[in-house]
Amino acid sequence: MTSVSAEALVELAKRRGFFLQSADAYGGVSGFYTFGPQGAAMKRNVEETWRDRFAIQEGHMEIDAPTVLPEPVFEASGHLDGFDDMLVECPECGQSHRADHIVEDGETGIEEAESLAPERIEEVVAEYELACPTCGTGLAGQAIEQFNLMFETNIGPGSSSPGYLRPETAQGIFIEFPQFAEYARNQLPFGVTQIGRAYRNEISPRKSLLRVREFTQAELELFVDPEEDEPDLSAVADVTAQFYPAEAQDRADGEPVEMTIGEAVEDGIVADPWIAYYLGVAAEWYAAIGLDMDRFRFRQHRPGELAHYSEDCWDAEGDVSDPDEDPDWIELGGFAYRADYDLSKHDAHSEAEFTIFKQYDDPVTVEQPTVDPEMGYLGPEFGGAAGDVADALEALAEDDPDAFAGEDVTVEVDGEAYTVPVEQTGFAIEEVTESGEHIMPHVVEPSLGIDRALYTALDHSYREDEVDGEERTYLELPPAVAPTTVGVFPLMDKDGLGERAREIAAELRADGLAVAYDDSGAIGRRYRRQDEVGTPYCVTVDYDTLEDGTVTIRDRDSTDQTRVAADDLASTIEALVEGDSTFQNL
Amino acid sequence: MTSVSAEALVELAKRRGFFLQSADAYGGVSGFYTFGPQGAAMKRNVEETWRDRFAIQEGHMEIDAPTVLPEPVFEASGHLDGFDDMLVECPECGQSHRADHIVEDGETGIEEAESLAPERIEEVVAEYELACPTCGTGLAGQAIEQFNLMFETNIGPGSSSPGYLRPETAQGIFIEFPQFAEYARNQLPFGVTQIGRAYRNEISPRKSLLRVREFTQAELELFVDPEEDEPDLSAVADVTAQFYPAEAQDRADGEPVEMTIGEAVEDGIVADPWIAYYLGVAAEWYAAIGLDMDRFRFRQHRPGELAHYSEDCWDAEGDVSDPDEDPDWIELGGFAYRADYDLSKHDAHSEAEFTIFKQYDDPVTVEQPTVDPEMGYLGPEFGGAAGDVADALEALAEDDPDAFAGEDVTVEVDGEAYTVPVEQTGFAIEEVTESGEHIMPHVVEPSLGIDRALYTALDHSYREDEVDGEERTYLELPPAVAPTTVGVFPLMDKDGLGERAREIAAELRADGLAVAYDDSGAIGRRYRRQDEVGTPYCVTVDYDTLEDGTVTIRDRDSTDQTRVAADDLASTIEALVEGDSTFQNL
Repeated sequence: MTSVSAEALVELAKRRGFFLQSADAYGGVSGFYTFGPQGAAMKRNVEETWRDRFAIQEGHMEIDAPTVLPEPVFEASGHLDGFDDMLVECPECGQSHRADHIVEDGETGIEEAESLAPERIEEVVAEYELACPTCGTGLAGQAIEQFNLMFETNIGPGSSSPGYLRPETAQGIFIEFPQFAEYARNQLPFGVTQIGRAYRNEISPRKSLLRVREFTQAELELFVDPEEDEPDLSAVADVTAQFYPAEAQDRADGEPVEMTIGEAVEDGIVADPWIAYYLGVAAEWYAAIGLDMDRFRFRQHRPGELAHYSEDCWDAEGDVSDPDEDPDWIELGGFAYRADYDLSKHDAHSEAEFTIFKQYDDPVTVEQPTVDPEMGYLGPEFGGAAGDVADALEALAEDDPDAFAGEDVTVEVDGEAYTVPVEQTGFAIEEVTESGEHIMPHVVEPSLGIDRALYTALDHSYREDEVDGEERTYLELPPAVAPTTVGVFPLMDKDGLGERAREIAAELRADGLAVAYDDSGAIGRRYRRQDEVGTPYCVTVDYDTLEDGTVTIRDRDSTDQTRVAADDLASTIEALVEGDSTFQNL
Repeated sequence: MTSVSAEALVELAKRRGFFLQSADAYGGVSGFYTFGPQGAAMKRNVEETWRDRFAIQEGHMEIDAPTVLPEPVFEASGHLDGFDDMLVECPECGQSHRADHIVEDGETGIEEAESLAPERIEEVVAEYELACPTCGTGLAGQAIEQFNLMFETNIGPGSSSPGYLRPETAQGIFIEFPQFAEYARNQLPFGVTQIGRAYRNEISPRKSLLRVREFTQAELELFVDPEEDEPDLSAVADVTAQFYPAEAQDRADGEPVEMTIGEAVEDGIVADPWIAYYLGVAAEWYAAIGLDMDRFRFRQHRPGELAHYSEDCWDAEGDVSDPDEDPDWIELGGFAYRADYDLSKHDAHSEAEFTIFKQYDDPVTVEQPTVDPEMGYLGPEFGGAAGDVADALEALAEDDPDAFAGEDVTVEVDGEAYTVPVEQTGFAIEEVTESGEHIMPHVVEPSLGIDRALYTALDHSYREDEVDGEERTYLELPPAVAPTTVGVFPLMDKDGLGERAREIAAELRADGLAVAYDDSGAIGRRYRRQDEVGTPYCVTVDYDTLEDGTVTIRDRDSTDQTRVAADDLASTIEALVEGDSTFQNL
């Protein structure tokens, strides 16, 4: 296992076409990255494995909503008011900084300042004489402001229709719930997924891909009946991961503990079975895209961190520390039980109903008190108040049918009491049959960051070794996410070797494999290029190929080579990729 | 061939989960659409076929850049100044409209008003007494304003770093050209592709998916050496399409003409071979995703329409008219020869160089005049002006070496003439060997709209017929883009039929097929559901399946049914999808 510094990884990423800071020609723009050919291919592969595991295998619908949404959506979701970071501006150099980061980075002993009130942050800044990280000027006395992290724009001419770049893909799902419920034929549970861009106007982007202003999320919103629906926990019961519960974080000697999902549920570590189910699914997925599970954990939110709508929340975290440094855990994804928070907000703020009509197994008969007041009596008796008295009788029947048990019943209208003989009220108890009721589903949300998963997979798969006395760098990426599956090289581009190699490359491509053709430079150099982008297999076409139809196939990790028939190449590589065969058995 | 009205198509699209206007619960937001499960799947398929044809088969790199870019990029690209529509606001109701559309829709005889000057539009509005389409108030005298179509936002706190949602994916490619050229090892031609969101803050979005504010583009920027690179036209020479050249549009009896790409080049209809090549590639692609090529054409831009940087430009157009209406041609994509417009702009506006070092086949020896002035002479002679005189001598040697042919040479500094003996200038002509030169590549750009392609494919594949005396609606989508490839139904969910059907569905999914499992309602109704979303094949598991291991497979278009062995199902369906077999031959 080789570790790599962030600096070396970012250099490799740029040089080999994984990712680079955007607009470098214009001095770069903080928090925006462009994926080069290798990175874009790997990102699509990571997304494809997520889609397969979280959408297709689970039978959920995948949708694709706009990235710009109008203001009322974010009024309802709470982002307009609450999606803020604390900002402090340096009085000297004018640079803006995240005030909570300045507190955490200072010698204050405070490790998490995000949940502190701005007033408290102002006190801490003054008390510890914290200074501007850019120019060193003291920040005591500077106001701490709430800065909304949504990018704002205007839809159409003028400023009458503000719009925002979505801070999460989720809202594009929630607001269309009424229509999606119809697609699901109103049957719970059903899940809706989306992979797409989301935006946060970070005050100080940093750590290359890890804190950016534009990123890709993969989210699943699972709508469940909280009374009835249960996941099939047996499918993930044996999946192992490290768990770091809130109580262990609060203990001085608290440590993450390795256990199975089944044990975590049994021991009450993870309270909600749906959350436990998706932790299991996610752990398998993170391992499949190349994370080192020794540098991965699930950390429970402590009570102070919990969003007010969330009953329980766990984060997936990966360690991306530099070699010989303390672990540096970053958030890779969140797993939240959001209850009916989102649907109830949109139900209240919009014209639509965000409920499901839940059919009872058997129709239910309920007793319903009704009145049918004799207006021929009420009218002459109460004059202009007769209508109001009738309404009051109806309300009373619903609230307190026992009030009609005697001979008379008394209601109050505008502070005056009216007594009516029960026989004049038409009071009766009817039996009504109801076939179901409207319920508001609860939401279970696994929300994963694609860019951070990709970065961590690169970080965890970085290897250095020595081959034939030369240092070598390679990425031990799983074939499912490696940008290229097979490199195809002619020994040299003459004597028909180039033609044959291009033919083979075309055949492998037609079989759906990701192929890189390369005929430039020494073979050893071509191997190194593919090693550095994580290509698991390379194939060389040489003079023997023209004679006996075999090619050399080389394994990235062991650098072992063997010969196989060119005609069997596609099936050989597919078997290796699928794990149905090993290189040693070829 | 059945045609469908836009209204009926939009209704089907919403009901069946292709697309719907976003934020309907909040009254909807103009110009933003959400793709439902069927639409999102179809969109991914359309993108995948584009990727395969325009990137993988052509050997180009695909990248993924941010959707938000900083202002200097759009200053350079010209979008900040020139990416405008003409806007007129109604003095009565306050509604904003596109002024050119009001002119075109009025009885003015003007068919294309976009290229007219705002002053001319004001005259036309007054002359024809054009009125607000919303409230009917006359618009004469209202100012016509230029409205920039980019969505603006701010990057980071404050307003010191404006950013814009990209109006095209292309700029994210152009600005990283220096790095991408390194990935291509500085070898021309090379192509960079990108599929992603782009944004235009339309004044009046309309026609559902056809004029929206957020959409998906698939663009290829091909960088070529204009002196040397040529496409392999033979690969597309036989592709047929309708061509509508500029001169035919200007003739009263001008009509589109059907011909092959080869003929179009030979007859000089399409002047640039690269444009011709990509028209051929695109025609094949549009046919492959389900467009009716009788309702498709390539239309050349007329001189007035051409962007100033573009030497030649063709649009792909599709007819999306309602039944029994005149053709309604919409732009589906553009094919532009952009020369070095983009790279030269970014070269001039940024710190980076947007050139390629082009190696000569053989080094070239050139004569290079040099001077090495004797400062021991110039100093005493000219005092403080000596340095400037030396610089002037150097400049003169480069511009006009013949000036050094005599005994003396005279240069001018700050309006004063200085005469120097040639022997004191150290003038010499050196032979310099150059291995190559920096050239600025030209750009060929096929730019295709994914949403419009998807809409037109739905429109062109809509069919109605009668089956067993019942009216039926189905989409004759090619299997490559249909959201679902195969529907799997148990006759009913009992006696083990459901279990067997779910097993078969899982097997087909594992084979990479897009499967819909459905056990609800009568079989006929399940067929209709799949017909309406264009699923080419349906499989039914019945009691015979449990006996003899065969299932019924049904063909969407003919509604024919036959039985095949369940064990061969995946390969049978794959052969049908690939066109290696036909349903009639099963």
